[in-house]
Amino acid sequence: MFDLLDILGTMAFAISGALTAINKKMDPFGVFVIAFVTAVGGGTLRDVLIGHTPVGWMRNLDSVYVIIAGFVVTLIFRKKLDKLRVSLFLFDTIGLGVFTLIGLEKGIASGLHPVICIALGTMTACFGGVIRDILCNEIPVIFRKEIYATICIIGGCVFFLLRKLNVPEDVLYPVVSAVIIAIRLMAVNYKWSLPALDRK
Amino acid sequence: MFDLLDILGTMAFAISGALTAINKKMDPFGVFVIAFVTAVGGGTLRDVLIGHTPVGWMRNLDSVYVIIAGFVVTLIFRKKLDKLRVSLFLFDTIGLGVFTLIGLEKGIASGLHPVICIALGTMTACFGGVIRDILCNEIPVIFRKEIYATICIIGGCVFFLLRKLNVPEDVLYPVVSAVIIAIRLMAVNYKWSLPALDRK
Amino acid sequence: MFDLLDILGTMAFAISGALTAINKKMDPFGVFVIAFVTAVGGGTLRDVLIGHTPVGWMRNLDSVYVIIAGFVVTLIFRKKLDKLRVSLFLFDTIGLGVFTLIGLEKGIASGLHPVICIALGTMTACFGGVIRDILCNEIPVIFRKEIYATICIIGGCVFFLLRKLNVPEDVLYPVVSAVIIAIRLMAVNYKWSLPALDRK
Repeated sequence: MFDLLDILGTMAFAISGALTAINKKMDPFGVFVIAFVTAVGGGTLRDVLIGHTPVGWMRNLDSVYVIIAGFVVTLIFRKKLDKLRVSLFLFDTIGLGVFTLIGLEKGIASGLHPVICIALGTMTACFGGVIRDILCNEIPVIFRKEIYATICIIGGCVFFLLRKLNVPEDVLYPVVSAVIIAIRLMAVNYKWSLPALDRK
Repeated sequence: MFDLLDILGTMAFAISGALTAINKKMDPFGVFVIAFVTAVGGGTLRDVLIGHTPVGWMRNLDSVYVIIAGFVVTLIFRKKLDKLRVSLFLFDTIGLGVFTLIGLEKGIASGLHPVICIALGTMTACFGGVIRDILCNEIPVIFRKEIYATICIIGGCVFFLLRKLNVPEDVLYPVVSAVIIAIRLMAVNYKWSLPALDRK
Repeated sequence: MFDLLDILGTMAFAISGALTAINKKMDPFGVFVIAFVTAVGGGTLRDVLIGHTPVGWMRNLDSVYVIIAGFVVTLIFRKKLDKLRVSLFLFDTIGLGVFTLIGLEKGIASGLHPVICIALGTMTACFGGVIRDILCNEIPVIFRKEIYATICIIGGCVFFLLRKLNVPEDVLYPVVSAVIIAIRLMAVNYKWSLPALDRK
């Protein structure tokens, strides 16, 4: 179940990365690299920072194959993907929940402080998009308007709160995923965003 | 004493990063990330390149708390920080000296060649700003006009020169910090900079 | 022989990086950093991702000295390097072949899957240029028009094909280098490139 959600999330991230690159008029190699870093860039950064090397996608090639599939699907159906906008958004939201949990888990397995684990969860879910934006020569979108990362941070806090209350793992994981997914859906529906700061 | 200087430097770097992000009209999450990478990005890059993982701020959370404090201070006082311009500049200059020494020290502890240690000192002090500029979609300022990095390199050379002359550590550290701080103050005062190169 | 080719390639990459930085009107420090990351950035990224730290240039300073030499040569002869355009292009092409092989080799030595080894070969040869472009605030050129990376991928496939056929190493290496160099020369001569994708 968790593995299936992981695959759906990776696929959605890869497709969203590929579409961004196509909009930037990149060639197929560029499109593939952007799809790749969008999907696994956050987890790669996490693995490098905690010293978990060779990084994840080098040891288990599943995500590489999922990304290749996502890349091919995008190339073939790129003119029709707008019709899948809602499905893609849902998969992307699932990815947000699943990747945050994977990051939290890796932090705990490395014996790191909860604050750092929450940072790692957020990084896993959101920093693929940051690397994508840098490679596309844009200021990362999550630094400007989407409350994407904030949702992961809230999810991470809920995770450690419930864990402190001894909620068992097989309840904890679905609940935290559900919280993240629910907040994300509400955030988009009600157009929540953090205000830009200014100095006036 | 050294710890206090480290805290002042980290705080100054975090505030300068946060102000840059606010000027780019980022939201609070973006401002926090930019404050964070400006303060610890150089040291993080150093730790990753020498394989000292999990990286520093994950093992000792002091700098995380200092950055959070710097972030909150900037958010609250952002309209008044111009009045602290001189203090911030001084703390930033202290940070330059302290971070260079920390980088030199880590390089020596890893048994690396003096040339590499000087590179690590410069990286620790200056590359947080490079990552900040990349995330803000600018060409890094230290590649263009400030002789910021050059001062760290000079400091590193003085360090190894004095070390070769068997100057004891408790003299070596303050002297090298003082050299870096003094050159930086003179550089700003007399508007020293490296000339841009051209091909005409 | 291989070492000589490695030096020629590193030198060509460093000079090309330095010239890019000069065109961006950077100061000498910026020019040096860009020369450095263009030459060793790909290998550094590879070493970090596979956990081979401290990264290559920290353990063996040969490439550092070659880059310093390339930097000095560029500074002195920057107005005349256009006359060396053909030599520089040839050295750059040699670098492409040699660096791909080094990356393939390191991947095999780390016991990684052929797909990952090919990714590492491509990364070693091409991602120094990607980091250069990001630091210069450009969308990486290899994502847009040159079929630079594609050639490395083809070279990697030929490598594993011949290896499967038990071609001995002392034949394998020169043949794969020659294939990469030959395709690159043809690609430039006949102006091959991957088409940009669009959504119309």
